[in-house]
Amino acid sequence: MGYQVPHKVGDRVGVGCFVDSCRKCGPCLGGLEQYCVEGPTLTYNGVERDGQTRTQGGYSNKIVADENYVLRIPDNLPMDRTAPLLCAGITMYSPLMHWKAGPGKKVGIIGLGGLGHMGVKIAHALDAEVSVLSHSLKKQDEAKKMGADKFYATTSSDQESFEKLKGYFDLIINTLSVEIDWNRYLNLLTLDGTMVVVGLPENETPLGAASLINARRSLAGSVIGGIRETQAMLDFCSKHNIASDIELLQIQKVNEAYPRVVKSDVRYRFVIDTKSLD
Amino acid sequence: MGYQVPHKVGDRVGVGCFVDSCRKCGPCLGGLEQYCVEGPTLTYNGVERDGQTRTQGGYSNKIVADENYVLRIPDNLPMDRTAPLLCAGITMYSPLMHWKAGPGKKVGIIGLGGLGHMGVKIAHALDAEVSVLSHSLKKQDEAKKMGADKFYATTSSDQESFEKLKGYFDLIINTLSVEIDWNRYLNLLTLDGTMVVVGLPENETPLGAASLINARRSLAGSVIGGIRETQAMLDFCSKHNIASDIELLQIQKVNEAYPRVVKSDVRYRFVIDTKSLD
Repeated sequence: MGYQVPHKVGDRVGVGCFVDSCRKCGPCLGGLEQYCVEGPTLTYNGVERDGQTRTQGGYSNKIVADENYVLRIPDNLPMDRTAPLLCAGITMYSPLMHWKAGPGKKVGIIGLGGLGHMGVKIAHALDAEVSVLSHSLKKQDEAKKMGADKFYATTSSDQESFEKLKGYFDLIINTLSVEIDWNRYLNLLTLDGTMVVVGLPENETPLGAASLINARRSLAGSVIGGIRETQAMLDFCSKHNIASDIELLQIQKVNEAYPRVVKSDVRYRFVIDTKSLD
Repeated sequence: MGYQVPHKVGDRVGVGCFVDSCRKCGPCLGGLEQYCVEGPTLTYNGVERDGQTRTQGGYSNKIVADENYVLRIPDNLPMDRTAPLLCAGITMYSPLMHWKAGPGKKVGIIGLGGLGHMGVKIAHALDAEVSVLSHSLKKQDEAKKMGADKFYATTSSDQESFEKLKGYFDLIINTLSVEIDWNRYLNLLTLDGTMVVVGLPENETPLGAASLINARRSLAGSVIGGIRETQAMLDFCSKHNIASDIELLQIQKVNEAYPRVVKSDVRYRFVIDTKSLD
């Protein structure tokens, strides 16, 4: 369980999206606590293993957590820009590693928000060719600075991008939490390509079998990552000097920030400064 | 290209679902002609590489085909019961091999028709644990004779099977060409499990992201197999004494057989006796 490096007083550490899991099922024993058969104990508004105690989240300047579920933050990573790595960062790192993004692989990232911008940075550091598929060309310059090789607008009028990219990608990660036409994007995958869904749209979406059958494509899902893998992601980000682009926020302004989150008007994650809690 | 064993006059040979392909794209060069980027030349009502000549299918006592697209029929396999192997057999063999059905793997086959009954026989010969998920228990005894270890009814009233089998299968192959609730079946997959669609329902089907995300599941598609793999399937079937269960038909009765195909009232494939063509 966990990564078995004891933490000491004064260490720089962080807690991710879950603080416990059953510790005995196959996924837990395999370091995939996020897929714990009984369900991991989520950090925010989850339920402890006792089945009744509510977890209270991390909007606080103190938190009690089992050391097996605490991550080591490398010295060169700033704390505020690292906080989103424990959610958005690992959500992208895990599928990029599992589906083997790397040299010679063409990776498409749908959506350039909190998740997407981490996907671009990590896939680029993995030496994959990275394309962003975004609603408009608005964020093109920022994406290229993050390491994107290519940038395409996906507005329904842009049939040209879709024609040109047919059968192009080895891996597409769809970061959107709104419904899109999966068939349209599946057709952009090459033989044995995979599209991974990491967002959770509210409604089901129609899918045609032909989109999968034509080139032995897969549509898959992935959620955050295990403790070991989250530590590996932090170490990887440390090595490649990767952190999240954030807007640091005083807790007193949280009600102003929320509507901007809903409108996707944030570059690229809000982080609450815990100093403002005092 | 092909399997490079020249055929001689008098050899027992067969032709499958396609008779040619572009021979130069990645999939063709990799022995995956069924995924030829330009599309393989289908045996039935296809178009030759010249872009205009119609292929005329196999309902005849002679056919001209390039030897690279002709399969060797092993001596111990009867010709009539082998004919469906070149379509139904390879359609099941290819995904069972690609997604590594074998000892210790739990395989579910949805539907026990022409495709499904071949899936049961092949998965059993691969030493996987095989379960059939069928509309009713009607074909249970026949399935067990074919090698099925377990048999479940999937009528909507049978919530018990679905509860019991949640997270059970490593691999499910859906042979149905009618729409089903994919979400319901995806939930039967364990961590990293895959459901492969080999039938082609007419309409799109609603899919929820949660069904995939919860256990890093995949929904994939597969179509027949390449020439090398089709030969490997025939050799495998020869070794394990596997052939299709058929009803042999005189061509004169084809109009009586057709409505029975539509009603799925055939055990398990009709094969036309080419002697009746004379």
